[in-house]
Amino acid sequence: MTYRVGIIGGTGYTGSELSRILCRHPDVELTALTSRNNAGKSVVSVHTFLQGYTDLKFTAKIDETPDLDLVFVATPYGVAMNEVPALRERGIKCIDLSGDYRLKDPALYTKWYGKEHTDPEHLAEAVYGLPEFFRGKIRGADLVANPGCYATSAILACAPLLKSGLVYPDVIVDGKSGTSGAGMVPTPRLHHPTCGASVIPYSVGKHRHTPEIEMAVDMFAGTRPKVVFVPHLVPIVRGILSSCYFRLKDEADDETVAAVFRQVYGKEKFVHYVSEPSIRAVVGSNHAQVGSKVIGDRAVAFGVLDNLVKGAAGQAVQNMNLMLGLDEGAGLDYPGMGV
Amino acid sequence: MTYRVGIIGGTGYTGSELSRILCRHPDVELTALTSRNNAGKSVVSVHTFLQGYTDLKFTAKIDETPDLDLVFVATPYGVAMNEVPALRERGIKCIDLSGDYRLKDPALYTKWYGKEHTDPEHLAEAVYGLPEFFRGKIRGADLVANPGCYATSAILACAPLLKSGLVYPDVIVDGKSGTSGAGMVPTPRLHHPTCGASVIPYSVGKHRHTPEIEMAVDMFAGTRPKVVFVPHLVPIVRGILSSCYFRLKDEADDETVAAVFRQVYGKEKFVHYVSEPSIRAVVGSNHAQVGSKVIGDRAVAFGVLDNLVKGAAGQAVQNMNLMLGLDEGAGLDYPGMGV
Amino acid sequence: MTYRVGIIGGTGYTGSELSRILCRHPDVELTALTSRNNAGKSVVSVHTFLQGYTDLKFTAKIDETPDLDLVFVATPYGVAMNEVPALRERGIKCIDLSGDYRLKDPALYTKWYGKEHTDPEHLAEAVYGLPEFFRGKIRGADLVANPGCYATSAILACAPLLKSGLVYPDVIVDGKSGTSGAGMVPTPRLHHPTCGASVIPYSVGKHRHTPEIEMAVDMFAGTRPKVVFVPHLVPIVRGILSSCYFRLKDEADDETVAAVFRQVYGKEKFVHYVSEPSIRAVVGSNHAQVGSKVIGDRAVAFGVLDNLVKGAAGQAVQNMNLMLGLDEGAGLDYPGMGV
Amino acid sequence: MTYRVGIIGGTGYTGSELSRILCRHPDVELTALTSRNNAGKSVVSVHTFLQGYTDLKFTAKIDETPDLDLVFVATPYGVAMNEVPALRERGIKCIDLSGDYRLKDPALYTKWYGKEHTDPEHLAEAVYGLPEFFRGKIRGADLVANPGCYATSAILACAPLLKSGLVYPDVIVDGKSGTSGAGMVPTPRLHHPTCGASVIPYSVGKHRHTPEIEMAVDMFAGTRPKVVFVPHLVPIVRGILSSCYFRLKDEADDETVAAVFRQVYGKEKFVHYVSEPSIRAVVGSNHAQVGSKVIGDRAVAFGVLDNLVKGAAGQAVQNMNLMLGLDEGAGLDYPGMGV
Repeated sequence: MTYRVGIIGGTGYTGSELSRILCRHPDVELTALTSRNNAGKSVVSVHTFLQGYTDLKFTAKIDETPDLDLVFVATPYGVAMNEVPALRERGIKCIDLSGDYRLKDPALYTKWYGKEHTDPEHLAEAVYGLPEFFRGKIRGADLVANPGCYATSAILACAPLLKSGLVYPDVIVDGKSGTSGAGMVPTPRLHHPTCGASVIPYSVGKHRHTPEIEMAVDMFAGTRPKVVFVPHLVPIVRGILSSCYFRLKDEADDETVAAVFRQVYGKEKFVHYVSEPSIRAVVGSNHAQVGSKVIGDRAVAFGVLDNLVKGAAGQAVQNMNLMLGLDEGAGLDYPGMGV
Repeated sequence: MTYRVGIIGGTGYTGSELSRILCRHPDVELTALTSRNNAGKSVVSVHTFLQGYTDLKFTAKIDETPDLDLVFVATPYGVAMNEVPALRERGIKCIDLSGDYRLKDPALYTKWYGKEHTDPEHLAEAVYGLPEFFRGKIRGADLVANPGCYATSAILACAPLLKSGLVYPDVIVDGKSGTSGAGMVPTPRLHHPTCGASVIPYSVGKHRHTPEIEMAVDMFAGTRPKVVFVPHLVPIVRGILSSCYFRLKDEADDETVAAVFRQVYGKEKFVHYVSEPSIRAVVGSNHAQVGSKVIGDRAVAFGVLDNLVKGAAGQAVQNMNLMLGLDEGAGLDYPGMGV
Repeated sequence: MTYRVGIIGGTGYTGSELSRILCRHPDVELTALTSRNNAGKSVVSVHTFLQGYTDLKFTAKIDETPDLDLVFVATPYGVAMNEVPALRERGIKCIDLSGDYRLKDPALYTKWYGKEHTDPEHLAEAVYGLPEFFRGKIRGADLVANPGCYATSAILACAPLLKSGLVYPDVIVDGKSGTSGAGMVPTPRLHHPTCGASVIPYSVGKHRHTPEIEMAVDMFAGTRPKVVFVPHLVPIVRGILSSCYFRLKDEADDETVAAVFRQVYGKEKFVHYVSEPSIRAVVGSNHAQVGSKVIGDRAVAFGVLDNLVKGAAGQAVQNMNLMLGLDEGAGLDYPGMGV
Repeated sequence: MTYRVGIIGGTGYTGSELSRILCRHPDVELTALTSRNNAGKSVVSVHTFLQGYTDLKFTAKIDETPDLDLVFVATPYGVAMNEVPALRERGIKCIDLSGDYRLKDPALYTKWYGKEHTDPEHLAEAVYGLPEFFRGKIRGADLVANPGCYATSAILACAPLLKSGLVYPDVIVDGKSGTSGAGMVPTPRLHHPTCGASVIPYSVGKHRHTPEIEMAVDMFAGTRPKVVFVPHLVPIVRGILSSCYFRLKDEADDETVAAVFRQVYGKEKFVHYVSEPSIRAVVGSNHAQVGSKVIGDRAVAFGVLDNLVKGAAGQAVQNMNLMLGLDEGAGLDYPGMGV
């Protein structure tokens, strides 16, 4: 059986990466991509890299397309919560990549996203889509909130240690991200002369992935850590490295800490514990790498991924696979670039 | 049927990219990777990005592995011609990625590669492996000389125009390459502080791909152009752009020139004529893009590809598919990164 | 004596680089910087790198400042020609960095800049400010048209050869520029995810520096070459390399060609003939490097400079020094970064 | 009076940057540069960016040059301590940039540098050359240990806060450095394809600047903090950003923390407290910027500088100026690049 899927917001980086993956997926047919500005144009005229892989045209609205099984909402936050109710009404499963359905508490949403949540009903039922931790719930879900890119890298590096009880529930996350994570709209900070030969801290202590990391770790580890998160823009296009600093409760050596990660990720297809996590090893793929080191009474854990794949579109497809009862790795089963 | 293939030189960038493609190929089994320095180690311990994709260990010599159908020779030039005779003796098909079997004339080899060719017999029978131009011969070949990365980008951009007769057989190729094209051995020029914020012309008028471009164009177009080729190192890891300058014989407009390319590449899976060729559109894939523009009595053509894929390992697998009677795109059928 | 100078357009990259140089100049006082958006703010609050070097505040208009000896017009083209007449009326010497006064023929201006020239009177008297070639005229000038960045690099590499008669008056200029040359306004092409890991040809055959190169070479060499110019954006912030391709009239060797350049630049402070021109050698300084190589019946010449210094603000200060009777290198006498 | 100075190790990045500064210094004459490999060659033949600024030739040994007032030792660590005794014997003041004279405790040297210290006598008298904190001692010193690049950025960001008592003496330093900090010898990690599109943590918990930061803070603040330091390589050539994380003892707001820094650096020429420290603002200059932010019960402080200038050669010249009784900013008084 082939499922029919659509994307709302098909021109942005996330939508474009979703198209890239879905046009090669063995079990789904990419049936609709919406774009206000490009409605009526062929997708390959905008995304030339898809030439040979799709004959689709952009449509203005998703409801022009009948019989959709699942829709990815790849809009800016604040827009998604206006789209999801109608889709759910039509019985269409949804994966939201925007952030609108991540924070379970509407008050937290208002605090960090700066607006009222207008769809608290679906917010309540949305499942946080980190498959390695919440696979079971995702399988039965109709609405999945796809995690943020920084958040995924940090949660993968932090949650096992926090669950293990080896460290105090208090973590400093120093994030370094490639520029594609900030989206396709040109801004002064993303202007090449500004960021192309620099490292730029931003949203210091105010980034929206902070409460998301706290919430997700809590759900997995049963303890809500205090997270200090400082993201930095680095001059690469794809890739995130999160360096996460903990205080150990008791003495522990590298092997003890490593064992915690191996235990959690040993059988995972897409998350790997390695001695030296490397952005180049995962870029272009849905794989993530995690590493760790003990430094005196501290431990540092590293989480590495491609922000557009495991940090966005790839993980969304992984979630889709689970929601539709497909093989979890379908359409995603290729290694990172290496070089 | 599954074919058994091996790689001589499995740790370099080309060998590593070959592994990446072959471990996911539907019709072949990657059976052997040689490495003098890593013999006995598991491949994933060196190439962590392959975790989950292979259980192979590096071997010291290819003849430790029985029943090979085809071997990729991914050694430095000068070494390959010592490996190929024994492989052919064993009846194993070969694809040489080193340059040793590209220039049909041994004297030309000596002039540009600085040494005697020690295997003129196989040199004579080797087929130049640019599938879009020499598909028929490749299908029947036992030994294929895989084209150089710069050469592929330039030939794709130049050969159709030269064949068309619209331009004089005299072309200036200004090449810009990412650094992975230079291989994995650290050198002063590839040292990040040297090249990371610069554009560096090198081997001016002396690069080995010069006679290769001339020869391949001659074979396809029936006319041997005079090529001036100046390569430049640019601070990206993957990707080549070759800007090729011609003089028009008669007045011509953009559309006339474009028609030449569309005629040649219109049905090709991996080569596309587009209005604005883009490195990001092809990086990570076996696709190449070509574009052109008329400027007064001149025409410029652009060729763009990923130097490690269509410029090396991907094209080699495309050749393998032809040699083994498989679907030409098997294992290569995915789009470029886009972003 | 200290001269009082001002800058119209003090927030853009050119204005900012002018401030950087002028605040340390021994013979002038930077007296005014205009900025519509920042009027009233201290300069260092916008340009934090100038902390300790100026107490100035931005003003809305240059006529708020009395007794100016010279003004740099660092506005977009089309705006400068509205500013210059009033300044000249007040007897203030002007250096225009915008392009409005470069092309002597108003019809050419209309063709390439897409608008009528509204100040043909001053256009007629403007001197093209390339000191190495037109030093004498610049000394007596009241209005100098500061050359474009690409144009400077190409002219320095081309003009001596064209004057020598060794080559035909027909040149292909393949330009590679850092991103700061495109100015401080964020655009899709300058967005880091677009350009940060790519090389992008643009304005193919349509760049405004094309007729400028032809005109300047003509003025210096007495022969108007036909120029084909294709600029490429490369992922560095500062720096230009222009690779210029010629056909030799007669056989010539490297030394003959080199001698031409040494003859022209041997006594120059800021232009150097070297065997391997390097962007890193000149970045951050007013120095340019030129190199050359014979390839069969072709010659290639390279021109290298920092687009914001010798390609804009530095050369403007060099022109100012000449116009005010100061030492030509005053305020500019430091080497490039090297690393 | 003009002082005669020399450099041992004149070809490396630090030696080259020292030459760049010293050849323009108003009060000293650069009299000798040693280089084993380049002895006898003119300096500009190796460092083409110095053309026009020096006529020196490299010499094999510093003792070929008479009447030196001061020598910079820019060798690898372990070599410097073999050079200093003879220089001091001759009465020559020394500034060591290698690390050999930074850690006052020889046992600590052995632990972190992996060898015995062979010159404990001079180690005992060496002054740690961070002018903003130890100006008085540097003035009278004959031997100055020039601080490390990471160390300088971290100490400038950490020491004031630790002295203030607002934070606990326990700090996490997440360092991000450009590649020139690692020196000019090509290595696999510095190979462009490895590091040019990645962020790479290295020497995790084992970097030699860790004890240096602890020691220097102790000397300035009277309290020895526990430092966890993780350096990361980022794909820029020059520039360091250190992000330093503290726990506040009591509640404090941004202004309270900022006041601490303003108090310490308010009158400094080269260190500036700004709201958004920027690598581009300081690159190419001896300036450093510091910033801070309170995040709940944590504070983060940022330190930013050019690793080759304020992080090495510039700071060394600043120390020289103090040692020779010159103006502290002589030869260093220019702003950063800005763009």
